[in-house]
Amino acid sequence: MDRVTVSLDELPIRDDLRGQKPYGAPQAPLPVALNVNENTHPVPPEVADDIADAVARALREINRYPDREFLALREGFAQYLGHGLDASQIWAGNGSNEVLQHVLQAFAGPGRSAFGFGPTYSMYPLLTSGVGAEWIGGTRGHAYELSPEDAAEQVERARPDVIFLCAPNNPTGTPLPLDVIEAVYDASHGIVVVDEAYQEFAPRDSPSALTLLGGRPRLAVSRTMSKAFAFAGARVGYLAADPALIDALRLVRLPYHLSALTQAAAGAALQHATTMLRMVDEIVVQRDRMSATLEALGYRPSESWTNFVLFGGVADPAATWRALYDRGVLIRDIGIPGHLRVTAGTEEETTAFLEALAEIGAR
Amino acid sequence: MDRVTVSLDELPIRDDLRGQKPYGAPQAPLPVALNVNENTHPVPPEVADDIADAVARALREINRYPDREFLALREGFAQYLGHGLDASQIWAGNGSNEVLQHVLQAFAGPGRSAFGFGPTYSMYPLLTSGVGAEWIGGTRGHAYELSPEDAAEQVERARPDVIFLCAPNNPTGTPLPLDVIEAVYDASHGIVVVDEAYQEFAPRDSPSALTLLGGRPRLAVSRTMSKAFAFAGARVGYLAADPALIDALRLVRLPYHLSALTQAAAGAALQHATTMLRMVDEIVVQRDRMSATLEALGYRPSESWTNFVLFGGVADPAATWRALYDRGVLIRDIGIPGHLRVTAGTEEETTAFLEALAEIGAR
Repeated sequence: MDRVTVSLDELPIRDDLRGQKPYGAPQAPLPVALNVNENTHPVPPEVADDIADAVARALREINRYPDREFLALREGFAQYLGHGLDASQIWAGNGSNEVLQHVLQAFAGPGRSAFGFGPTYSMYPLLTSGVGAEWIGGTRGHAYELSPEDAAEQVERARPDVIFLCAPNNPTGTPLPLDVIEAVYDASHGIVVVDEAYQEFAPRDSPSALTLLGGRPRLAVSRTMSKAFAFAGARVGYLAADPALIDALRLVRLPYHLSALTQAAAGAALQHATTMLRMVDEIVVQRDRMSATLEALGYRPSESWTNFVLFGGVADPAATWRALYDRGVLIRDIGIPGHLRVTAGTEEETTAFLEALAEIGAR
Repeated sequence: MDRVTVSLDELPIRDDLRGQKPYGAPQAPLPVALNVNENTHPVPPEVADDIADAVARALREINRYPDREFLALREGFAQYLGHGLDASQIWAGNGSNEVLQHVLQAFAGPGRSAFGFGPTYSMYPLLTSGVGAEWIGGTRGHAYELSPEDAAEQVERARPDVIFLCAPNNPTGTPLPLDVIEAVYDASHGIVVVDEAYQEFAPRDSPSALTLLGGRPRLAVSRTMSKAFAFAGARVGYLAADPALIDALRLVRLPYHLSALTQAAAGAALQHATTMLRMVDEIVVQRDRMSATLEALGYRPSESWTNFVLFGGVADPAATWRALYDRGVLIRDIGIPGHLRVTAGTEEETTAFLEALAEIGAR
């Protein structure tokens, strides 16, 4: 066919999309990629073999539509999460972004609003405008902390239909005490989503928002397999909530949104939760080494309960980002003045980052 | 946690969703399932093995996010479609429903409208209301046909932002001449999507709307791997259009929407297009036998260029559907008075359906 005949501006695209650029961290092929909070440890071979076998079995009936209710997988998530949950309280999607989109489609959308305390996960406002709802940004204290009183007061004023609480928070890494979640829930009439994408990297004895679900039908807790489970490429996010809330998501999802391959792969990976969570312990060790060394180098790392560290005290973030890039280390400039964000890698990757940074600082 | 505490109505769900039921054909475990236009032939074992190998390779890096631009897969689709297309003219999603949703998010959404000639694919209005746009239903002739003049006149009157032309049409099976597509394009200012989900079942010498893409930057042609490729469980749909239109879809998709497993599996399946299309020939034989026998039984099958047959002359569709169900044969009552729809199965499945129907008619 003929080659490109028009520019995007000549097409009848929605006015609110005109001039926009697609979301995206650079996908650069650098030796040390610590920019998108992936788990840099590959899935262990014995686990990968089990997953491959499960996928091979699913291929035998791949000509048929998948189980629209992905019941076996929901049972797997319920068992993994514990807290007495069962499959009727579980939802899943192609990444937690899709799960959050389902929440917004059911409870926000045109004429409604969603809210979050910035700085927080950059996809929340994008997902919100994607469903035609209004985004309202709240604020945090100087160390990115939130008090129950302040949080409740902001939510009461904004009266949002959906509230995102990222706990621990991306991109700051900071924990969120349960009493803040309780206060926000009580102060609102909307759906409160606690996004626990990084919860597995928090101290083992820190309680999950899952403990708050009982008696709070407007509360939802989302998770992802992208981080602790080293499954970013498989795109699997999930959510726990009251069965009535799950029913609402069923109204807006695309039919058969979760493929039979995804269901098989995720189910098999969940069987190896213990093995996968051992990698988490190793990542936490590297994260803490990273924070300690950053501090020794004169930077100001935020307290992190995640697999990454946000650090301040960077005189020129763009220059430091570039200098690391030139040394084969990719991290993330998330647009907070004086700050950069880096994912905790393997021991070697973490060392490579810290040595490159020390070298830059010494110049 | 405590068991269910509320009903869906007690949650702050969007008003337009209140009282709705989720989409869905019944997923009943009957011996002969001919209700959702799947390809009832499993993927041949040698093809499945190749796909499993590709997935196993992808699992080695599954801890990393997938290629957000799924470039290798787009190249595979371009090559499969031919017509001089290249990767910059290709898009894909988790089923063609997601691809169509991307089109609606970019070009319809709140305050805009989408249009189709009914009866047509039942997901179009659902996808449209899902993005907050208005659905406008057009009409067809008594044999579900469309003339260029009538189609253009309806579109001019409706002034929709997105137009869906299902070709051949689901649930009627009827072909759509290219001059209707040209007339609709010329009569509109919006995006014209020709949904060729069933194109591989049309006569081999019938031209695809792909031949119309050159010089028509508002035209898009969508396809699916669910039907001809026997890949319904893998959830892969795709679309060909001007690179500028593809750029617009990039603005609204979720980041990393297509998993590394999906990319690997679909790419491997495309390598076996020739083998997969041989199954299509066998299905077409069964479809034509189905139509001929239906006519001999006194029903009125519509002309079909798809893998299913819509047939009229059914005195009581609900009763006939139930009588077939009781005989282990699942077909679809798509709500057209006096009609039922049945998918062409394997030779055995097709025989089972026709014999069950003959038995019912004879009683």
